Amino acid sequence: MTTFTEKAPGVAEEIPTAAAGFTLNHSMVRIKDPERALHFYTHVFGMRLLRKLEFPEMQFTLYFLTQLSPEDSVPEDPDERTIWTFSQRGLLELTHNWGTEDDPEFAYHNGNSDPQGYGHICFNVPNLDSAETWFEDMGVEFIKRANDGKMKNVVFVKDPDGYWIEVIQADLMAGAGQ
Amino acid sequence: MTTFTEKAPGVAEEIPTAAAGFTLNHSMVRIKDPERALHFYTHVFGMRLLRKLEFPEMQFTLYFLTQLSPEDSVPEDPDERTIWTFSQRGLLELTHNWGTEDDPEFAYHNGNSDPQGYGHICFNVPNLDSAETWFEDMGVEFIKRANDGKMKNVVFVKDPDGYWIEVIQADLMAGAGQ
Repeated sequence: MTTFTEKAPGVAEEIPTAAAGFTLNHSMVRIKDPERALHFYTHVFGMRLLRKLEFPEMQFTLYFLTQLSPEDSVPEDPDERTIWTFSQRGLLELTHNWGTEDDPEFAYHNGNSDPQGYGHICFNVPNLDSAETWFEDMGVEFIKRANDGKMKNVVFVKDPDGYWIEVIQADLMAGAGQ
Repeated sequence: MTTFTEKAPGVAEEIPTAAAGFTLNHSMVRIKDPERALHFYTHVFGMRLLRKLEFPEMQFTLYFLTQLSPEDSVPEDPDERTIWTFSQRGLLELTHNWGTEDDPEFAYHNGNSDPQGYGHICFNVPNLDSAETWFEDMGVEFIKRANDGKMKNVVFVKDPDGYWIEVIQADLMAGAGQ
Protein backbone atom coordinates (compact mmCIF):
# COMPACT_ATOMS: atom_id res chain seq x y z
CA MET A 1 0.00 0.00 0.00
CA THR A 2 1.24 3.48 -0.84
CA THR A 3 -0.70 6.04 1.08
CA PHE A 4 -0.04 9.77 1.12
CA THR A 5 -1.28 11.98 3.87
CA GLU A 6 -0.49 15.61 4.57
CA LYS A 7 1.72 17.15 7.21
CA ALA A 8 0.54 20.10 9.26
CA PRO A 9 1.30 21.38 12.77
CA GLY A 10 -0.27 19.05 15.31
CA VAL A 11 -0.70 16.03 13.00
CA ALA A 12 0.49 12.68 14.44
CA GLU A 13 3.33 10.98 12.55
CA GLU A 14 1.89 7.53 13.22
CA ILE A 15 -1.52 6.17 14.22
CA PRO A 16 -1.38 5.43 17.97
CA THR A 17 -1.84 1.71 18.62
CA ALA A 18 -4.63 2.46 21.09
CA ALA A 19 -6.66 4.11 18.33
CA ALA A 20 -6.35 1.26 15.82
CA GLY A 21 -9.73 0.25 14.42
CA PHE A 22 -11.54 3.43 15.45
CA THR A 23 -13.98 4.49 12.71
CA LEU A 24 -16.22 7.53 12.26
CA ASN A 25 -19.69 6.00 12.37
CA HIS A 26 -22.07 8.94 12.12
CA SER A 27 -22.84 12.61 12.43
CA MET A 28 -26.02 13.66 14.27
CA VAL A 29 -28.42 16.57 13.87
CA ARG A 30 -31.74 17.12 15.62
CA ILE A 31 -34.81 17.36 13.42
CA LYS A 32 -38.23 18.85 14.19
CA ASP A 33 -40.46 16.55 12.11
CA PRO A 34 -39.25 13.03 11.26
CA GLU A 35 -41.74 12.44 8.44
CA ARG A 36 -40.61 15.64 6.71
CA ALA A 37 -36.89 14.92 7.21
CA LEU A 38 -37.12 11.24 6.21
CA HIS A 39 -39.10 12.16 3.08
CA PHE A 40 -36.38 14.64 2.13
CA TYR A 41 -33.30 12.47 2.75
CA THR A 42 -34.74 9.27 1.25
CA HIS A 43 -36.36 10.91 -1.80
CA VAL A 44 -33.96 13.73 -2.68
CA PHE A 45 -30.65 12.10 -1.63
CA GLY A 46 -31.52 8.41 -2.06
CA MET A 47 -30.73 7.49 1.54
CA ARG A 48 -32.12 4.35 3.18
CA LEU A 49 -33.35 4.04 6.75
CA LEU A 50 -31.15 1.33 8.27
CA ARG A 51 -32.39 1.51 11.81
CA LYS A 52 -34.97 3.36 13.88
CA LEU A 53 -34.38 3.23 17.64
CA GLU A 54 -37.11 4.50 19.97
CA PHE A 55 -36.47 5.47 23.57
CA PRO A 56 -39.96 6.03 25.05
CA GLU A 57 -38.66 6.62 28.57
CA MET A 58 -36.61 9.57 27.34
CA GLN A 59 -39.14 10.53 24.61
CA PHE A 60 -36.85 10.51 21.60
CA THR A 61 -36.30 8.46 18.46
CA LEU A 62 -33.07 8.01 16.50
CA TYR A 63 -33.00 7.43 12.74
CA PHE A 64 -29.85 6.10 11.04
CA LEU A 65 -29.53 6.66 7.30
CA THR A 66 -27.02 5.90 4.58
CA GLN A 67 -26.74 5.37 0.84
CA LEU A 68 -26.30 1.63 0.35
CA SER A 69 -23.80 0.18 -2.08
CA PRO A 70 -24.74 -2.79 -4.26
CA GLU A 71 -22.38 -4.97 -2.20
CA ASP A 72 -24.06 -4.05 1.10
CA SER A 73 -26.12 -6.78 2.72
CA VAL A 74 -28.09 -5.42 5.66
CA PRO A 75 -29.23 -8.04 8.21
CA GLU A 76 -32.93 -8.65 8.84
CA ASP A 77 -32.64 -9.43 12.57
CA PRO A 78 -33.09 -6.14 14.48
CA ASP A 79 -30.18 -6.62 16.89
CA GLU A 80 -27.87 -7.79 14.10
CA ARG A 81 -28.98 -4.77 12.09
CA THR A 82 -28.19 -2.49 15.04
CA ILE A 83 -24.66 -3.93 15.24
CA TRP A 84 -24.26 -3.67 11.46
CA THR A 85 -25.43 -0.04 11.55
CA PHE A 86 -22.96 0.95 14.26
CA SER A 87 -20.17 -0.83 12.33
CA GLN A 88 -20.57 1.34 9.21
CA ARG A 89 -18.78 4.52 8.20
CA GLY A 90 -20.27 7.91 7.67
CA LEU A 91 -23.96 7.53 8.46
CA LEU A 92 -26.39 10.36 9.10
CA GLU A 93 -28.24 10.18 12.43
CA LEU A 94 -31.40 12.22 12.86
CA THR A 95 -32.67 12.73 16.42
CA HIS A 96 -36.35 13.46 17.00
CA ASN A 97 -37.33 14.77 20.41
CA TRP A 98 -41.03 13.93 20.57
CA GLY A 99 -43.51 16.75 20.25
CA THR A 100 -41.37 19.36 18.51
CA GLU A 101 -43.32 18.80 15.29
CA ASP A 102 -46.53 20.06 16.98
CA ASP A 103 -45.09 23.45 17.95
CA PRO A 104 -45.45 25.90 15.04
CA GLU A 105 -42.79 28.18 16.52
CA PHE A 106 -40.21 25.46 17.08
CA ALA A 107 -37.06 25.49 14.93
CA TYR A 108 -33.51 24.21 15.26
CA HIS A 109 -30.37 26.32 14.77
CA ASN A 110 -28.24 25.34 11.77
CA GLY A 111 -24.89 26.58 13.10
CA ASN A 112 -24.15 28.95 10.20
CA SER A 113 -25.66 32.10 11.70
CA ASP A 114 -24.58 33.29 15.15
CA PRO A 115 -23.68 31.49 17.28
CA GLN A 116 -21.62 29.62 14.65
CA GLY A 117 -20.16 26.16 14.96
CA TYR A 118 -21.47 23.25 12.90
CA GLY A 119 -21.45 23.85 9.16
CA HIS A 120 -22.94 21.21 6.88
CA ILE A 121 -22.90 17.71 5.50
CA CYS A 122 -21.72 17.13 1.93
CA PHE A 123 -22.78 14.66 -0.73
CA ASN A 124 -20.67 13.62 -3.70
CA VAL A 125 -22.78 13.04 -6.82
CA PRO A 126 -21.95 11.48 -10.21
CA ASN A 127 -23.13 14.54 -12.17
CA LEU A 128 -23.53 17.97 -10.61
CA ASP A 129 -25.61 19.45 -13.47
CA SER A 130 -28.10 16.59 -13.28
CA ALA A 131 -28.23 16.88 -9.49
CA GLU A 132 -28.99 20.60 -9.73
CA THR A 133 -31.88 19.89 -12.10
CA TRP A 134 -33.09 17.12 -9.77
CA PHE A 135 -33.12 19.49 -6.80
CA GLU A 136 -35.10 22.03 -8.85
CA ASP A 137 -37.60 19.32 -9.82
CA MET A 138 -37.95 18.32 -6.17
CA GLY A 139 -38.49 21.90 -5.02
CA VAL A 140 -35.37 21.97 -2.87
CA GLU A 141 -34.30 25.37 -1.53
CA PHE A 142 -30.96 26.53 -2.95
CA ILE A 143 -28.42 28.57 -0.98
CA LYS A 144 -25.92 28.61 -3.85
CA ARG A 145 -25.87 27.11 -7.34
CA ALA A 146 -22.78 25.67 -9.04
CA ASN A 147 -22.04 28.86 -10.95
CA ASP A 148 -22.75 31.34 -8.15
CA GLY A 149 -20.00 33.11 -6.20
CA LYS A 150 -16.31 32.37 -5.97
CA MET A 151 -16.57 28.63 -5.30
CA LYS A 152 -17.52 27.19 -8.69
CA ASN A 153 -18.81 23.62 -8.96
CA VAL A 154 -20.08 23.71 -5.39
CA VAL A 155 -23.83 23.64 -4.71
CA PHE A 156 -25.43 24.39 -1.34
CA VAL A 157 -29.05 23.54 -0.54
CA LYS A 158 -31.12 23.50 2.66
CA ASP A 159 -32.79 20.53 4.26
CA PRO A 160 -36.30 20.94 5.74
CA ASP A 161 -34.85 21.99 9.13
CA GLY A 162 -32.64 24.60 7.50
CA TYR A 163 -29.38 22.65 7.83
CA TRP A 164 -26.94 23.29 4.99
CA ILE A 165 -26.04 20.54 2.54
CA GLU A 166 -23.08 20.88 0.19
CA VAL A 167 -23.18 18.96 -3.08
CA ILE A 168 -20.10 18.38 -5.19
CA GLN A 169 -18.87 16.16 -8.03
CA ALA A 170 -15.51 14.79 -6.88
CA ASP A 171 -13.66 14.97 -10.21
CA LEU A 172 -14.62 18.64 -10.65
CA MET A 173 -12.85 19.50 -7.35
CA ALA A 174 -9.30 19.01 -8.72
CA GLY A 175 -7.55 22.36 -8.47
CA ALA A 176 -9.65 23.62 -5.55
CA GLY A 177 -7.60 25.44 -2.92
CA GLN A 178 -3.82 25.38 -2.72
CA MET B 1 -28.26 -9.26 -2.03
CA THR B 2 -30.73 -9.32 0.83
CA THR B 3 -30.98 -5.93 2.38
CA PHE B 4 -33.42 -4.93 5.09
CA THR B 5 -34.31 -1.34 5.72
CA GLU B 6 -36.98 0.10 7.98
CA LYS B 7 -40.32 1.62 7.13
CA ALA B 8 -41.44 4.86 8.69
CA PRO B 9 -43.73 7.70 7.58
CA GLY B 10 -42.03 9.67 4.82
CA VAL B 11 -39.50 7.00 3.82
CA ALA B 12 -39.21 6.37 0.04
CA GLU B 13 -40.08 2.84 -1.10
CA GLU B 14 -37.38 2.87 -3.77
CA ILE B 15 -34.25 4.89 -4.37
CA PRO B 16 -35.07 7.51 -7.03
CA THR B 17 -33.01 6.94 -10.19
CA ALA B 18 -31.86 10.55 -10.12
CA ALA B 19 -30.22 9.98 -6.71
CA ALA B 20 -28.30 6.84 -7.72
CA GLY B 21 -24.64 7.08 -6.78
CA PHE B 22 -25.07 9.92 -4.28
CA THR B 23 -22.82 9.35 -1.25
CA LEU B 24 -22.39 11.18 2.04
CA ASN B 25 -18.82 12.48 1.80
CA HIS B 26 -18.29 14.52 4.94
CA SER B 27 -19.60 16.46 7.89
CA MET B 28 -18.07 19.87 8.66
CA VAL B 29 -17.46 21.80 11.86
CA ARG B 30 -15.56 25.04 12.33
CA ILE B 31 -12.53 24.94 14.62
CA LYS B 32 -10.72 27.78 16.38
CA ASP B 33 -7.13 26.44 16.33
CA PRO B 34 -6.09 23.93 13.66
CA GLU B 35 -2.94 22.73 15.46
CA ARG B 36 -4.98 21.94 18.58
CA ALA B 37 -7.79 20.21 16.65
CA LEU B 38 -5.44 18.24 14.36
CA HIS B 39 -3.40 17.08 17.35
CA PHE B 40 -6.59 15.83 19.02
CA TYR B 41 -8.18 14.01 16.07
CA THR B 42 -4.96 12.42 14.78
CA HIS B 43 -3.58 11.40 18.19
CA VAL B 44 -6.70 10.50 20.19
CA PHE B 45 -8.87 9.11 17.38
CA GLY B 46 -6.20 7.90 14.95
CA MET B 47 -7.43 10.01 12.04
CA ARG B 48 -5.20 10.87 9.09
CA LEU B 49 -5.07 14.20 7.28
CA LEU B 50 -5.96 13.35 3.68
CA ARG B 51 -6.06 16.83 2.29
CA LYS B 52 -5.51 20.42 3.36
CA LEU B 53 -7.02 23.03 1.07
CA GLU B 54 -6.11 26.68 1.60
CA PHE B 55 -8.16 29.55 0.24
CA PRO B 56 -6.03 32.67 0.89
CA GLU B 57 -8.42 34.99 -0.93
CA MET B 58 -11.21 34.03 1.50
CA GLN B 59 -8.83 33.50 4.45
CA PHE B 60 -9.80 29.98 5.39
CA THR B 61 -8.30 26.49 5.30
CA LEU B 62 -10.14 23.17 5.06
CA TYR B 63 -8.80 19.96 6.62
CA PHE B 64 -10.22 16.56 5.57
CA LEU B 65 -9.67 13.65 7.94
CA THR B 66 -10.54 9.97 8.07
CA GLN B 67 -9.40 6.71 9.59
CA LEU B 68 -7.72 4.79 6.78
CA SER B 69 -8.32 1.08 6.22
CA PRO B 70 -5.40 -1.21 5.34
CA GLU B 71 -6.84 -1.54 1.82
CA ASP B 72 -6.92 2.22 1.24
CA SER B 73 -4.36 3.57 -1.20
CA VAL B 74 -4.29 7.36 -1.13
CA PRO B 75 -2.81 9.01 -4.25
CA GLU B 76 0.35 11.16 -4.00
CA ASP B 77 -0.60 13.68 -6.69
CA PRO B 78 -2.44 16.57 -5.00
CA ASP B 79 -5.27 16.83 -7.53
CA GLU B 80 -5.76 13.07 -7.62
CA ARG B 81 -5.78 13.11 -3.82
CA THR B 82 -8.43 15.84 -3.85
CA ILE B 83 -10.63 13.73 -6.12
CA TRP B 84 -9.97 10.63 -3.99
CA THR B 85 -10.87 12.59 -0.84
CA PHE B 86 -14.18 13.82 -2.24
CA SER B 87 -15.00 10.27 -3.42
CA GLN B 88 -14.84 8.78 0.09
CA ARG B 89 -17.61 8.22 2.62
CA GLY B 90 -17.95 9.74 6.01
CA LEU B 91 -14.98 12.08 6.37
CA LEU B 92 -14.61 14.82 8.96
CA GLU B 93 -13.99 18.30 7.56
CA LEU B 94 -12.55 20.96 9.87
CA THR B 95 -12.81 24.58 8.73
CA HIS B 96 -10.35 27.14 10.05
CA ASN B 97 -11.21 30.79 9.53
CA TRP B 98 -7.82 32.47 9.86
CA GLY B 99 -7.14 34.46 12.98
CA THR B 100 -9.68 32.95 15.38
CA GLU B 101 -6.85 31.19 17.23
CA ASP B 102 -5.38 34.56 18.23
CA ASP B 103 -8.54 35.82 19.95
CA PRO B 104 -8.61 34.57 23.57
CA GLU B 105 -12.36 35.23 23.81
CA PHE B 106 -13.27 33.38 20.61
CA ALA B 107 -15.22 30.13 20.88
CA TYR B 108 -17.56 28.15 18.65
CA HIS B 109 -21.05 26.92 19.66
CA ASN B 110 -21.40 23.14 19.88
CA GLY B 111 -25.14 22.94 19.16
CA ASN B 112 -26.08 21.14 22.37
CA SER B 113 -26.87 24.18 24.50
CA ASP B 114 -29.37 26.80 23.29
CA PRO B 115 -29.81 27.37 20.43
CA GLN B 116 -29.78 23.62 19.78
CA GLY B 117 -29.31 21.89 16.43
CA TYR B 118 -26.19 19.90 15.64
CA GLY B 119 -25.41 17.16 18.15
CA HIS B 120 -22.21 15.18 17.71
CA ILE B 121 -20.08 12.82 15.68
CA CYS B 122 -19.71 9.20 16.80
CA PHE B 123 -16.81 6.77 16.60
CA ASN B 124 -17.14 2.99 16.77
CA VAL B 125 -14.22 1.38 18.62
CA PRO B 126 -13.12 -2.26 18.97
CA ASN B 127 -13.12 -2.14 22.80
CA LEU B 128 -14.98 0.51 24.78
CA ASP B 129 -13.19 -0.17 28.09
CA SER B 130 -9.78 0.22 26.48
CA ALA B 131 -10.93 3.37 24.69
CA GLU B 132 -12.12 4.89 27.99
CA THR B 133 -8.72 4.22 29.55
CA TRP B 134 -7.02 5.67 26.46
CA PHE B 135 -9.07 8.88 26.73
CA GLU B 136 -8.12 9.15 30.43
CA ASP B 137 -4.43 8.68 29.54
CA MET B 138 -4.71 11.38 26.88
CA GLY B 139 -6.42 13.84 29.25
CA VAL B 140 -9.63 13.98 27.21
CA GLU B 141 -12.60 15.70 28.86
CA PHE B 142 -15.48 13.33 29.56
CA ILE B 143 -19.13 14.31 29.37
CA LYS B 144 -20.35 10.82 30.23
CA ARG B 145 -18.61 7.51 30.90
CA ALA B 146 -19.90 4.11 29.77
CA ASN B 147 -21.57 3.36 33.09
CA ASP B 148 -23.06 6.80 33.78
CA GLY B 149 -26.75 7.60 33.32
CA LYS B 150 -29.46 5.65 31.50
CA MET B 151 -27.55 4.99 28.28
CA LYS B 152 -25.05 2.28 29.27
CA ASN B 153 -22.14 1.46 26.96
CA VAL B 154 -22.20 4.93 25.48
CA VAL B 155 -19.31 7.35 26.16
CA PHE B 156 -19.37 11.06 25.39
CA VAL B 157 -16.23 13.21 25.35
CA LYS B 158 -15.48 16.75 24.19
CA ASP B 159 -13.09 17.81 21.47
CA PRO B 160 -10.86 20.88 22.03
CA ASP B 161 -13.56 23.20 20.60
CA GLY B 162 -16.20 21.72 22.89
CA TYR B 163 -17.96 19.66 20.22
CA TRP B 164 -19.43 16.43 21.55
CA ILE B 165 -18.07 13.05 20.42
CA GLU B 166 -19.97 9.85 21.11
CA VAL B 167 -17.97 6.63 21.38
CA ILE B 168 -19.56 3.20 21.16
CA GLN B 169 -18.61 -0.43 20.59
CA ALA B 170 -21.00 -1.71 17.91
CA ASP B 171 -21.64 -5.20 19.30
CA LEU B 172 -22.57 -3.75 22.72
CA MET B 173 -25.39 -1.74 21.09
CA ALA B 174 -27.64 -4.76 20.42
CA GLY B 175 -30.81 -4.25 22.41
CA ALA B 176 -30.60 -0.44 22.43
CA GLY B 177 -33.94 1.25 21.86
CA GLN B 178 -37.04 -0.52 20.59
